[in-house]
Amino acid sequence: MKVLAIDTSNQPLSVALLEDEQLLTTTTTNINKNHSVTLMPLIEGLFKQTKWKPQDIDRIVVAQGPGSYTGLRIGITTAKTFACTLNKELVGVSSLEVLAETLANVEDYLIVPLFDARRNNVFAGGYQSKNGKLVQIIADQHIELERLCELLRGHAKVIFVGKDCTSFKKQLLEKLDSKKISFAAQNFAYPQAYVLGLIGEKNAAVEINSFVPHYLRLTQAETQWLKNHRETDHEPYVEKI
Amino acid sequence: MKVLAIDTSNQPLSVALLEDEQLLTTTTTNINKNHSVTLMPLIEGLFKQTKWKPQDIDRIVVAQGPGSYTGLRIGITTAKTFACTLNKELVGVSSLEVLAETLANVEDYLIVPLFDARRNNVFAGGYQSKNGKLVQIIADQHIELERLCELLRGHAKVIFVGKDCTSFKKQLLEKLDSKKISFAAQNFAYPQAYVLGLIGEKNAAVEINSFVPHYLRLTQAETQWLKNHRETDHEPYVEKI
Repeated sequence: MKVLAIDTSNQPLSVALLEDEQLLTTTTTNINKNHSVTLMPLIEGLFKQTKWKPQDIDRIVVAQGPGSYTGLRIGITTAKTFACTLNKELVGVSSLEVLAETLANVEDYLIVPLFDARRNNVFAGGYQSKNGKLVQIIADQHIELERLCELLRGHAKVIFVGKDCTSFKKQLLEKLDSKKISFAAQNFAYPQAYVLGLIGEKNAAVEINSFVPHYLRLTQAETQWLKNHRETDHEPYVEKI
Repeated sequence: MKVLAIDTSNQPLSVALLEDEQLLTTTTTNINKNHSVTLMPLIEGLFKQTKWKPQDIDRIVVAQGPGSYTGLRIGITTAKTFACTLNKELVGVSSLEVLAETLANVEDYLIVPLFDARRNNVFAGGYQSKNGKLVQIIADQHIELERLCELLRGHAKVIFVGKDCTSFKKQLLEKLDSKKISFAAQNFAYPQAYVLGLIGEKNAAVEINSFVPHYLRLTQAETQWLKNHRETDHEPYVEKI
């Protein structure tokens, strides 16, 4: 199966072409967040290198969130457009699972991938490796750091992964038992579209039109709207497309 | 420190730009072996993305071998030329260590990175993780698979890593105790220049002119020559440059 994998859910941007679990080519950048300008030329570059045409791929795998609103919209709109216009399969994978997967060989630890969600909130989930396969123990969610620490206190060994961990390291070491927690090495800091593609190759394809990002939080505008309008007064503020 | 990292030691080709442990951009391809044609345009692409000029980098880190003769020559010649003409630091890192490093969080295992060296020979080494840092237990070497298995029999838990493991999996499971050995997940199959750069950032720079690849075996022509000429009869057959 020929796969195009796209992750634009956070500042790092990663794209890959793979076939039956074998990497063909991949690029990951962490330079800036103008993914709308950068994404298509990078995908074009991958196709040039492999001499594949977009029509040759069987499936598009995209990081479905959580992450930056704009980042998710760019990746998912691109993936849906590819899938719809070329009549290809579409699969979404949790952006947090992509980070956790690189630690799937670490047993006895609760693996906690983490993105900064501003104002001392994070996007995080909890995964455990069972025979080399990840099982989700704590659902991906938008959560205050304090509250996340409460959820993690019962666990004997926790390993955090993701480049944003650096910003929270001090707090995590203070709020949790520093003997029970560790941080994945720097080489796991960035999501890899190749890993995303490997996960997505195994999942079932989804219905394209109804596929939406997993933002896992409301925008500030939505929160404000809901404050000022009773639920029953209005149609949903944002049409999910 | 701004680093350009280059690994052309085997079929996968990986290049990266990083700064103080942070990834800027990286590309890894596994399409074909015409590294002489592919390498420079890929490096040029990285510089374009980051808007860096070659003169901006502080250090070149290159995979020093073992691996393919031609692959090593291409990468190392490119790295030495960059370092020499631009007056930059040069560091070489074992191509096997780059693969092993991605498993540095796996404790209690002997980590065995492996490349196919044809005729049932491999390039392999043995590494162990101590507090997240790798320690070399078995030197990188060119070795018959049979002989490697003898070296590994005393170890309680061994994990193999690298895309070439697939070709030897059946033999390894037959020759060794299948309960004691395991194979790293597919997402660790390919060397990553970002990981190479992270290792190389920490090592001391070397003298450029005397820097040579670690082939770890003689070419067939050299073996043949040595068969037909007594050691004392001649100057070294190949001048190491």
